[in-house]
Amino acid sequence: LSPAPSKPKILVLHGPNLNLLGVREPDVYGTTTLSEINDRLVALGKRKGVLVQAYQSNHEGFLIDHLHSARGRCLGVILNAGGLTHTSVALRDAIASIEIPVVEVHLSNTSAREPFRRRSLIAPVCAGRIEGLGPRGYELALRALL
Amino acid sequence: LSPAPSKPKILVLHGPNLNLLGVREPDVYGTTTLSEINDRLVALGKRKGVLVQAYQSNHEGFLIDHLHSARGRCLGVILNAGGLTHTSVALRDAIASIEIPVVEVHLSNTSAREPFRRRSLIAPVCAGRIEGLGPRGYELALRALL
Amino acid sequence: LSPAPSKPKILVLHGPNLNLLGVREPDVYGTTTLSEINDRLVALGKRKGVLVQAYQSNHEGFLIDHLHSARGRCLGVILNAGGLTHTSVALRDAIASIEIPVVEVHLSNTSAREPFRRRSLIAPVCAGRIEGLGPRGYELALRALL
Amino acid sequence: LSPAPSKPKILVLHGPNLNLLGVREPDVYGTTTLSEINDRLVALGKRKGVLVQAYQSNHEGFLIDHLHSARGRCLGVILNAGGLTHTSVALRDAIASIEIPVVEVHLSNTSAREPFRRRSLIAPVCAGRIEGLGPRGYELALRALL
Amino acid sequence: LSPAPSKPKILVLHGPNLNLLGVREPDVYGTTTLSEINDRLVALGKRKGVLVQAYQSNHEGFLIDHLHSARGRCLGVILNAGGLTHTSVALRDAIASIEIPVVEVHLSNTSAREPFRRRSLIAPVCAGRIEGLGPRGYELALRALL
Amino acid sequence: LSPAPSKPKILVLHGPNLNLLGVREPDVYGTTTLSEINDRLVALGKRKGVLVQAYQSNHEGFLIDHLHSARGRCLGVILNAGGLTHTSVALRDAIASIEIPVVEVHLSNTSAREPFRRRSLIAPVCAGRIEGLGPRGYELALRALL
Amino acid sequence: LSPAPSKPKILVLHGPNLNLLGVREPDVYGTTTLSEINDRLVALGKRKGVLVQAYQSNHEGFLIDHLHSARGRCLGVILNAGGLTHTSVALRDAIASIEIPVVEVHLSNTSAREPFRRRSLIAPVCAGRIEGLGPRGYELALRALL
Amino acid sequence: LSPAPSKPKILVLHGPNLNLLGVREPDVYGTTTLSEINDRLVALGKRKGVLVQAYQSNHEGFLIDHLHSARGRCLGVILNAGGLTHTSVALRDAIASIEIPVVEVHLSNTSAREPFRRRSLIAPVCAGRIEGLGPRGYELALRALL
Amino acid sequence: LSPAPSKPKILVLHGPNLNLLGVREPDVYGTTTLSEINDRLVALGKRKGVLVQAYQSNHEGFLIDHLHSARGRCLGVILNAGGLTHTSVALRDAIASIEIPVVEVHLSNTSAREPFRRRSLIAPVCAGRIEGLGPRGYELALRALL
Amino acid sequence: LSPAPSKPKILVLHGPNLNLLGVREPDVYGTTTLSEINDRLVALGKRKGVLVQAYQSNHEGFLIDHLHSARGRCLGVILNAGGLTHTSVALRDAIASIEIPVVEVHLSNTSAREPFRRRSLIAPVCAGRIEGLGPRGYELALRALL
Amino acid sequence: LSPAPSKPKILVLHGPNLNLLGVREPDVYGTTTLSEINDRLVALGKRKGVLVQAYQSNHEGFLIDHLHSARGRCLGVILNAGGLTHTSVALRDAIASIEIPVVEVHLSNTSAREPFRRRSLIAPVCAGRIEGLGPRGYELALRALL
Amino acid sequence: LSPAPSKPKILVLHGPNLNLLGVREPDVYGTTTLSEINDRLVALGKRKGVLVQAYQSNHEGFLIDHLHSARGRCLGVILNAGGLTHTSVALRDAIASIEIPVVEVHLSNTSAREPFRRRSLIAPVCAGRIEGLGPRGYELALRALL
Repeated sequence: LSPAPSKPKILVLHGPNLNLLGVREPDVYGTTTLSEINDRLVALGKRKGVLVQAYQSNHEGFLIDHLHSARGRCLGVILNAGGLTHTSVALRDAIASIEIPVVEVHLSNTSAREPFRRRSLIAPVCAGRIEGLGPRGYELALRALL
Repeated sequence: LSPAPSKPKILVLHGPNLNLLGVREPDVYGTTTLSEINDRLVALGKRKGVLVQAYQSNHEGFLIDHLHSARGRCLGVILNAGGLTHTSVALRDAIASIEIPVVEVHLSNTSAREPFRRRSLIAPVCAGRIEGLGPRGYELALRALL
Repeated sequence: LSPAPSKPKILVLHGPNLNLLGVREPDVYGTTTLSEINDRLVALGKRKGVLVQAYQSNHEGFLIDHLHSARGRCLGVILNAGGLTHTSVALRDAIASIEIPVVEVHLSNTSAREPFRRRSLIAPVCAGRIEGLGPRGYELALRALL
Repeated sequence: LSPAPSKPKILVLHGPNLNLLGVREPDVYGTTTLSEINDRLVALGKRKGVLVQAYQSNHEGFLIDHLHSARGRCLGVILNAGGLTHTSVALRDAIASIEIPVVEVHLSNTSAREPFRRRSLIAPVCAGRIEGLGPRGYELALRALL
Repeated sequence: LSPAPSKPKILVLHGPNLNLLGVREPDVYGTTTLSEINDRLVALGKRKGVLVQAYQSNHEGFLIDHLHSARGRCLGVILNAGGLTHTSVALRDAIASIEIPVVEVHLSNTSAREPFRRRSLIAPVCAGRIEGLGPRGYELALRALL
Repeated sequence: LSPAPSKPKILVLHGPNLNLLGVREPDVYGTTTLSEINDRLVALGKRKGVLVQAYQSNHEGFLIDHLHSARGRCLGVILNAGGLTHTSVALRDAIASIEIPVVEVHLSNTSAREPFRRRSLIAPVCAGRIEGLGPRGYELALRALL
Repeated sequence: LSPAPSKPKILVLHGPNLNLLGVREPDVYGTTTLSEINDRLVALGKRKGVLVQAYQSNHEGFLIDHLHSARGRCLGVILNAGGLTHTSVALRDAIASIEIPVVEVHLSNTSAREPFRRRSLIAPVCAGRIEGLGPRGYELALRALL
Repeated sequence: LSPAPSKPKILVLHGPNLNLLGVREPDVYGTTTLSEINDRLVALGKRKGVLVQAYQSNHEGFLIDHLHSARGRCLGVILNAGGLTHTSVALRDAIASIEIPVVEVHLSNTSAREPFRRRSLIAPVCAGRIEGLGPRGYELALRALL
Repeated sequence: LSPAPSKPKILVLHGPNLNLLGVREPDVYGTTTLSEINDRLVALGKRKGVLVQAYQSNHEGFLIDHLHSARGRCLGVILNAGGLTHTSVALRDAIASIEIPVVEVHLSNTSAREPFRRRSLIAPVCAGRIEGLGPRGYELALRALL
Repeated sequence: LSPAPSKPKILVLHGPNLNLLGVREPDVYGTTTLSEINDRLVALGKRKGVLVQAYQSNHEGFLIDHLHSARGRCLGVILNAGGLTHTSVALRDAIASIEIPVVEVHLSNTSAREPFRRRSLIAPVCAGRIEGLGPRGYELALRALL
Repeated sequence: LSPAPSKPKILVLHGPNLNLLGVREPDVYGTTTLSEINDRLVALGKRKGVLVQAYQSNHEGFLIDHLHSARGRCLGVILNAGGLTHTSVALRDAIASIEIPVVEVHLSNTSAREPFRRRSLIAPVCAGRIEGLGPRGYELALRALL
Repeated sequence: LSPAPSKPKILVLHGPNLNLLGVREPDVYGTTTLSEINDRLVALGKRKGVLVQAYQSNHEGFLIDHLHSARGRCLGVILNAGGLTHTSVALRDAIASIEIPVVEVHLSNTSAREPFRRRSLIAPVCAGRIEGLGPRGYELALRALL
């Protein structure tokens, strides 16, 4: 957590279970791992002159902590909240309180899944949403924030 | 419709009323015209080695014809179906039948508008969706398809 | 489509199936054809010093295209959208976006027909409505716009 | 009530409270009085070779009597029934029974007012309806009947 | 209104639009006119020793006025209130206040017509009701009152 | 209808069936007639320096005509609309359009009667209401307007 | 509580919070205090030959006690029950049991306030009601009882 | 309030409006007064060796005060709470807090009266209930407590 | 469009997306192409002595145009309207206006699919319907029309 | 009621049944009596330089009287309205009218009791609420007001 | 976590997002930071002879762990659970299981916010609740626990 | 975390608050501690030739982390998710993603408790469920997995 002071920063947060990306069922979800996604984001950031910092956690509190840390320090946040998207009022409050744009990313098309995944508690407080585009969705969100 | 045979192609389809973009109420919708959006997509495509072909039509049938034409010929489609998003079963069937990825784009956040605009008939058969990110949403969709 | 440049213009648009007017069941719908209606409108316009341009199409997209073309070029539009009156969000968006008055015309009294014809998706964005007065309704609409 | 015997006639009936037109709140409803509307209708009738007879009454029975009197004597009737539009079954029956066309006129767009004004008991038995076009609506109705 | 002082009296009141009976659409409603109905009632009354007085009016107020006049002067009233049957609380109050029996008559079967004709506001304060028996209904009502 | 020009005026309007007051069922409704009520109002007005003009009618139209006549000529109106209270949109429109205070009076307590008498269509456009106080309610309304 | 024995009496009861009248928010509720209202009622009573006794209490029991005391001793009661209007069955029973007329007074138009104030538990057992006429409503109620 | 110290005691409490018993409408409610009821209870108590103390009040607070005073001093309480039965949570709490049996008495059958009298807030905390048996109900309650 | 003048004709219309039949997912939808279906219909027609003319279009307007062209020229029409079946009032009106029998064909059983496919707007104006019988349905429809 | 004139004051009001505190069921509610609570509040007030005046009453009217007396004389009010919390509109109106902060106190946790105790009629007009903390809740409320 | 062994302890737990207090939107939420609140609590504790230990965490698990740790070690807990108040059954179970009093604190009046914030899952298992009194609410809760 | 490499493994996960088992309220929940349960499971495992590893955590994230660690390393998982059972979509996703059987265990019968405990978000993705059988449930789950 010692970023170069002069460069603008983007925070990338991956929520619960996203650490299994690329490992589990590669024929279904592809072989791209979360590390590879993060590497690409960092590289893309480097080309664009921004420092990308990416974290994954299965802990709601960790995600809130890091959203707070981005306040007044980052240009924006890319957030895939996983299953917490549908249940966490605390996460919603965190997004609403940090005063920088948050772009919501989902790997799959949530409109085509179970009914309880259709309600996003965080959507009304995010700046925009990209869904169903797989790992590329993160890069697009990064470009959208620049 | 005589694209260079060797390059991969991406089809961009803009539906009803999008031809007025940048012309009508520029203080509300911005001054970016549809031509400028298309030019940027073509240029971005050129840099990426793909041929971008963009069409706007106020005709449902034209959009379906061109979706069909993309089948087995294009890598994917970027579609902003405008008002047809909410009413056209035929368009939905066309997307479902062409076996290449279609990315749904909306300039505004449809969740924040009239109730009859909240239902997207085409969403469940699209590969993904980008909304609320303005004209940049198209470029992100193009990158998503590459 | 080469109107005299100096005269103000009125666009008349007839939607799906109106081309059969005067041909089908003349004992019921009368023997006035759409051509005759248009001729009368053109003649009336000439007397009033406006150029009347009339088109019929069974294509939703054609109607939207011509609504757009009237923007900044015509004084107003007379529109009988036929069956599209009840189903087209795209047509509604087109009317709302052209910033000139549109008068809705229906040959028959829609209040006295099937329930699904009672809802007009376009009514809230039109300036006024004339219905049940047969072919004369068009001329009245023309006079209303002058 | 002594019209020239040879000329065809048109009856114009204004219902409750329309006598205050042009007098009450001129900045809202305009300064055109009911007399001026009637004068224009008579003059237009004269040019067209019909005798226009116009009456205003706040009495439901008066309106029904005059609708009856028009039977077999007038070409048609122009009726703005005011508040009775929404409550009078007797007026509806009168219109249905006189076998000549009645055109319903409203100065404002009733679809945009209080819910109890949206239901017209008389609409299904009228020949047609003109609404939202202000005082001009009467002249259009007169032309419609000729 | 100068009846023979010694004979008992029956008042017959026909409401809105009943003056057209026998004149309008004779193939549908029969050719019996209101005058003929009244004549038969007067003749039947003469045989039974009562004076029958019959009036028709399209004015709710006229009907109320005459109901009042029957108070303390007539044996009973035969009333066909036409369309007012369904909308007039004032007529109901008039019937309730005159303290003599009123028999409600309808030519057609109101239960078999439009929904808004099914509610009779006056029925609860009438002595009886005869409906669906055509012009004969009046004679039956007269016999019922004797 | 030739009032002294210099005195301020109050209009009193009695609706349908109120002419029977004091005549019908004196043991129930008392023996005060409408004439006596009017005489008292006129006398009370004289003492207070206002000219009271009182009319009764069983005709809705008559009441509307006289409400209109009070516009710009009277200080206020006392109105007992009888059964029309519950059914007349036209009367409501008349009250709303005359721009002087109207006090609604009912002889009986409408809260303790049939459900269909509980809804007053005119209440929202009246200045106040006095009910259940019998003939005295009129005098109180007169005092309230002074 | 030592009224002159020979004069008829009227009881005036003001319920909870009415003691603050004229003191609290004078720009909203006016500057007339409860004392002034009572003084006017006493003076008016003196002119009419009745003794007016007025009490205010925030105690439901006090109001019931005084309603009882009026039985067989007073001509009638004027009651503004304040917030108890909507909640007190005991007060309703007291009014119903004293066999002298009670007139309900409200300074404002209760139909135009919070829904829980629209139901009056006491209205069906009062003789009458005066509302929306401000402090004058009390004087009118006094006159009504004489 | 100076009962003989050695005898067990029973408290009888009559709520709002019960002081009028036997006085008001004797043909309906009988001529038995509250004093007579109390006398009978005292006499019955004497025969059974208990001291009966009876009070009536129209004040909710008085009833609560006396319920409290019975605590640790009386064997039980007989309570007819009148209209407070249906509205007073405070009375319910008082009954629940005094730790001696309270028997609820009603002269009439409350289930057969207005809907708002059907709910008894105090019933769940009383030891028992006797209703619809007239003045005898009190004596039965006394016997039940012994 | 130059049919032999002497032979009776049948028009076959295939709506949106049916051009992909036999090409897309042959293991699911079979390998019969639309051309083969048309060829079989033409051959069957030849044996039966009728000229079969078949068209496919993704344009609602095209289908309406050709329905119109069949009027007075063909014996009947076989129509598979695809997704327009569920949304087009304009198509319904076209069928209703051409005065020759139209048989609705669907390859699959629409009752066993998504809810939004269950309502057919055109069914009430078609002569008959054949669904769920695959490509054979067309031949059955042709036999039905002969 | 003769407070030292120079010190700021706080009013403490205890509603119905709170006088039994510390006496009834000491093992459940504790042995702290209301006197002790009041003594502590007075002492705490003395240390903080405010005069605390505390009253208990089982009478709704007494509570309203004292709320009024605090207007313009006290810094604030601590109110435990007991069972009246849930039923008294009059108490709510009193709180709303005195223009000084009122803190609502409950000894027990009302969220964990009967459903009819969950609705507080007075909560929306109080400044804050302390509940479930027993006798200490009063002292906390006192500190909150200072 | 090395408290002096001899002193009684109080645990203070601040849930998600409360670390931003006093930092974010100081003009709305005030400038008091969480540190200042904690300092005051520690100081107040010192004066009262208890050791106050305060923690903030955005982690539900952390809050549960610390609730457990307080069991048998602390006198009580002060808990502001933030957004978890409305969603965490696990937190509720933790409170219910530790057998020491937990006081729920909210800075604002939750009854006056979004509907989804009105339900507190933890309220029924807390000892008490203080809300709407701002940062002072914590100190009051501390005093309540001593 | 250094299990013998050769033996098959079973993971046992206890969710929030289960660490208090056997400690809190032993007369209600029994005196069996979580350690004893774990010891029995390890012993049973040893007899059956599997290595049992058991963990408890109050952190949703910890449970997800360990579910992930079991993937490709254990034969199955026994999970008592405590209060998270009803609220955690993230936990559900973790179970669904690890591709080994998970058996849900509850000590009590959740169907017989509060309504909010009746919905299990994780049940649909578990292999089976055992509830209401106390500590024995864990052993049954172990046997089920073998």
